[in-house]
Amino acid sequence: MTEQLKQLEILIRERRGSDPALSYVSKLFHAGRAKIAQKLGEEAIETVIAALGDNRQDLISESADLLFHLMVLLGDSGVTLADIEAELLRREGVSGLAEKAARVG
Amino acid sequence: MTEQLKQLEILIRERRGSDPALSYVSKLFHAGRAKIAQKLGEEAIETVIAALGDNRQDLISESADLLFHLMVLLGDSGVTLADIEAELLRREGVSGLAEKAARVG
Amino acid sequence: MTEQLKQLEILIRERRGSDPALSYVSKLFHAGRAKIAQKLGEEAIETVIAALGDNRQDLISESADLLFHLMVLLGDSGVTLADIEAELLRREGVSGLAEKAARVG
Amino acid sequence: MTEQLKQLEILIRERRGSDPALSYVSKLFHAGRAKIAQKLGEEAIETVIAALGDNRQDLISESADLLFHLMVLLGDSGVTLADIEAELLRREGVSGLAEKAARVG
Repeated sequence: MTEQLKQLEILIRERRGSDPALSYVSKLFHAGRAKIAQKLGEEAIETVIAALGDNRQDLISESADLLFHLMVLLGDSGVTLADIEAELLRREGVSGLAEKAARVG
Repeated sequence: MTEQLKQLEILIRERRGSDPALSYVSKLFHAGRAKIAQKLGEEAIETVIAALGDNRQDLISESADLLFHLMVLLGDSGVTLADIEAELLRREGVSGLAEKAARVG
Repeated sequence: MTEQLKQLEILIRERRGSDPALSYVSKLFHAGRAKIAQKLGEEAIETVIAALGDNRQDLISESADLLFHLMVLLGDSGVTLADIEAELLRREGVSGLAEKAARVG
Repeated sequence: MTEQLKQLEILIRERRGSDPALSYVSKLFHAGRAKIAQKLGEEAIETVIAALGDNRQDLISESADLLFHLMVLLGDSGVTLADIEAELLRREGVSGLAEKAARVG
């Protein structure tokens, strides 16, 4: 992740427990895990539909919504994007990819 | 993104047009946009269900699948994770968050 | 389907082309296929979440939303619930079930 | 519902508790609520994608899968399609529709 994305993740987490009237993120945390998961699912549906359309900006916008709500869901569960990255890189096929990159690079 | 995740994204993109028998990613690209979008949607459903369970490792695993298929879908559309990050940071609320982080940091 | 459900399906279809200000269904038809499909997807997510909870009434309510939006989506595509029933009964396994029912009944 | 669809629903329910090797439905019940809900979600994604395509038969096929898995999910929860119909007809807007149908008919 970029430093900026890490900052964003930290700030999202800081909103846990704060007044739900103050921000959308606080409101999501206050609504609870099931509601956050529902929003993630909805954004995934919108990403699917955008991907089948021809508008590149729509896809970027919906994917950003999806990634954002994933960060909130993970934040609610005490998981970080770094945990997800580690899992991706740990997997056999992915390690193979990274290894190949190391050889090629 | 970390350097490793960038490498993974590059390697995913290199699989476009390669033999679908060689890797899961090549097979996905060969199957086409609708099939990749379908897989993204399925992984989102599994992430929702994992989030409602109590198993942290399940959530990490399903979120990794979701992020991976998002990278493939974006790769098929010529969009990068960096485009998504830029969109997140461009948004008003998010910029506000980043600005706050700069002040605090 | 019951006679009442058939009536509901007919009335949903009659809303196509009518003023979107008049009803939720007219508004959906006016918004178009992608929007109706998005709503169907969202209701499916809510049905999944309700099914994992312990509240029977929530599941009934979300499933009703899902079936309702399926009827609107089918109406927009010129497909009827009767077409769906026929497809279910046509399938090999299902035909087997029906046959067994006939023998048992 | 037609008599045939009612029979199908009854037969689906009879598969609860039977050997998972005997039928797909038994296997689903054996896999449990979360797995059935996951399948419902997946079929909804496929219905969304089919609706955005131009193939009427695909939409019928995916909608049939969706309705079928909804029946299994409801069966696992002790809810019937009749409960869903009753909920649809109970709702204010829907009652209005039915009332209008009664006046027109």
